[in-house]
Amino acid sequence: MFDSILSNVRTKNPIVHNITNYVTVNDCANILLAVGASPIMADDIAEVEDITAISSALVINMGTLNERTIESMVRAGMHANKLGIPVIFDPVGAGASRLRNETLVTLFKNIRFSVIRGNISEIHAVAKGSGKTRGVDAAASDAINEANLHGAIEFAKSLAKKLHTVIAISGAIDIVTNGDRAYVIYNGHPVMARITGSGCMSTAVCGAFVGANPENILDATATAVCAVGICGERAAKICEKTGTFRTLLIDEMSVLDENTLTGGLRCEAR
Amino acid sequence: MFDSILSNVRTKNPIVHNITNYVTVNDCANILLAVGASPIMADDIAEVEDITAISSALVINMGTLNERTIESMVRAGMHANKLGIPVIFDPVGAGASRLRNETLVTLFKNIRFSVIRGNISEIHAVAKGSGKTRGVDAAASDAINEANLHGAIEFAKSLAKKLHTVIAISGAIDIVTNGDRAYVIYNGHPVMARITGSGCMSTAVCGAFVGANPENILDATATAVCAVGICGERAAKICEKTGTFRTLLIDEMSVLDENTLTGGLRCEAR
Amino acid sequence: MFDSILSNVRTKNPIVHNITNYVTVNDCANILLAVGASPIMADDIAEVEDITAISSALVINMGTLNERTIESMVRAGMHANKLGIPVIFDPVGAGASRLRNETLVTLFKNIRFSVIRGNISEIHAVAKGSGKTRGVDAAASDAINEANLHGAIEFAKSLAKKLHTVIAISGAIDIVTNGDRAYVIYNGHPVMARITGSGCMSTAVCGAFVGANPENILDATATAVCAVGICGERAAKICEKTGTFRTLLIDEMSVLDENTLTGGLRCEAR
Repeated sequence: MFDSILSNVRTKNPIVHNITNYVTVNDCANILLAVGASPIMADDIAEVEDITAISSALVINMGTLNERTIESMVRAGMHANKLGIPVIFDPVGAGASRLRNETLVTLFKNIRFSVIRGNISEIHAVAKGSGKTRGVDAAASDAINEANLHGAIEFAKSLAKKLHTVIAISGAIDIVTNGDRAYVIYNGHPVMARITGSGCMSTAVCGAFVGANPENILDATATAVCAVGICGERAAKICEKTGTFRTLLIDEMSVLDENTLTGGLRCEAR
Repeated sequence: MFDSILSNVRTKNPIVHNITNYVTVNDCANILLAVGASPIMADDIAEVEDITAISSALVINMGTLNERTIESMVRAGMHANKLGIPVIFDPVGAGASRLRNETLVTLFKNIRFSVIRGNISEIHAVAKGSGKTRGVDAAASDAINEANLHGAIEFAKSLAKKLHTVIAISGAIDIVTNGDRAYVIYNGHPVMARITGSGCMSTAVCGAFVGANPENILDATATAVCAVGICGERAAKICEKTGTFRTLLIDEMSVLDENTLTGGLRCEAR
Repeated sequence: MFDSILSNVRTKNPIVHNITNYVTVNDCANILLAVGASPIMADDIAEVEDITAISSALVINMGTLNERTIESMVRAGMHANKLGIPVIFDPVGAGASRLRNETLVTLFKNIRFSVIRGNISEIHAVAKGSGKTRGVDAAASDAINEANLHGAIEFAKSLAKKLHTVIAISGAIDIVTNGDRAYVIYNGHPVMARITGSGCMSTAVCGAFVGANPENILDATATAVCAVGICGERAAKICEKTGTFRTLLIDEMSVLDENTLTGGLRCEAR
């Protein structure tokens, strides 16, 4: 299953429209090319509809949001919804400022997301900001570990159901769920947290995998998260110094094949 | 000839003003430094004239254009024209949105370019957008190969003449022409298309070479295209994984000398 | 002393808010993570106060300033001053345009800086733009070498006193002074000038070191400058090709320990 999801990316070369931050944008473009997708970064309100229309997926990343790009996000997301193009959302820094929290509300009011990927505190802020949940903070407030895994899965499933989306929570353990089924993913390496862009790249790769597999968004998202994690593990085996590690992570994605993917999976259905 | 063009870059250290996209801007700055130029990235309308005025070349790249930066491009380009500073244009994504096509019209109405460098579909869009050609699409609509090379050269020469500029079309085979003379360039490596920024870096390097050799824009552009291609070939010999390849491409430019350049040339005059 | 300053960064993981340029922003984020800090890049005026408020230091870098971000710099800087959070300033390209010079005046009118780090010509422009000095240009107009070192130290001390800040001048020889005491630093390597971002990264690292050692801003700044210089020396020993060098510089910061730092110091009190 996961191998054919990767194969589809390689053969379909999905165009992925990214409205993203200027910190990790180059990494996102390079990892999309490495995995076989075609990235387009475009954020002017006068063109985002045109660009979304020729794309297989839209990735919205609010890492360095500003007044101008927030409007573009809304415009592009609404157009993607209208055209049936999946929208993947990375709520970078959600919870860190009122602007980010208000932007969550704006985006959720206007856009239906196919996938939302973030760390636990960002997904937490999403749960609040979407206006759809309340009081779930406590259970999910800490990093996910074996002790609190069950509660975290329930939180993620509940949020996914309420928002009609796939939720992907990244951390030492990742959770990917559509509210019905859930994957618990152990792939990845701690050094990934010591470079900027691991999360953004994972979200971008979700865009590629979902864009090439729109009929199976849950599995496509899980495969993307596993693929980035496996590449991180393989890169860390070669070098954990962070400058080189970042380069190797993209290297590994550029040569990842179906065998390496399926052989490296550390993923359980729950 | 080509070796002295490179020598001039190394000895003159031309300042190159870039109004460019935020995806590949770091790569452009680093390859400009690697080749011996001094990059300045500046895009506020209140300063672009001042920055252009102290530069040897202006590079305009519309990769992540927006309403604000389009105005800055026009302002800077017009000032460069007034001061006799060469303007190099990279029409990234031309044809992908109405905004990009309208921007082409705006730029061509206001600015005379010394060099326009893009892939075949971008140059194609330029041919339409500049309002100077019509119906040439068909012949040039495909990637350049030996079979359609003759037609592509004629298309490029015709466009160069009409726009009074040097046209550089990149692809598996590159064409550089001023309408009168043409170079066909076989340097380069397929992996260059698997990283973001190969095209943008090539355009930036054109800026450095033209800035240091303003009396010979055709040859300076051809040398720049060859130089980047040769560096790509040498990098790919060491590693084709894309993260490392990108780093090695800049490495090779940082040590490229006249002998390596002239020894590596695969370039024919047509 | 210097070793405990580094230890504090590693143990406190200071959050560093960066309003910075889009050329080197990824390098700045990665070197901050490498040294043990947590970078946040955020520049919308509606959120910079919130982000500054949760940070240990604010870094303002005017490399690709624009009308929008200049306002954000002022807003963030004033808020940092109000909250007692140190503000580190990198006047990139000061002197290159009227906009940059006018921005200097605006920033100095509204913000008290804890540290100002730049090359000699930028610090020179600061001396003019801050409106606090005059006629000191001549003495400081050249790169710092042994012959003019004494004059440069006096210039830096005088400016530091007048602006009530730490001044860090980078070059073949670096000077760091609070007006009272001064350090002359010989760490660093010429290849650092052949990549973009050496200066910006040094400023960002100053933010981390000052944020973790706010009671000792002079020594924290000197340690940061030494640390980046030592990492540059170690990276250059492995490879001077510039693409790889840039990666190795971050590698070295990610493994820099107290022994390597203190063993590598080439720093004199004056």
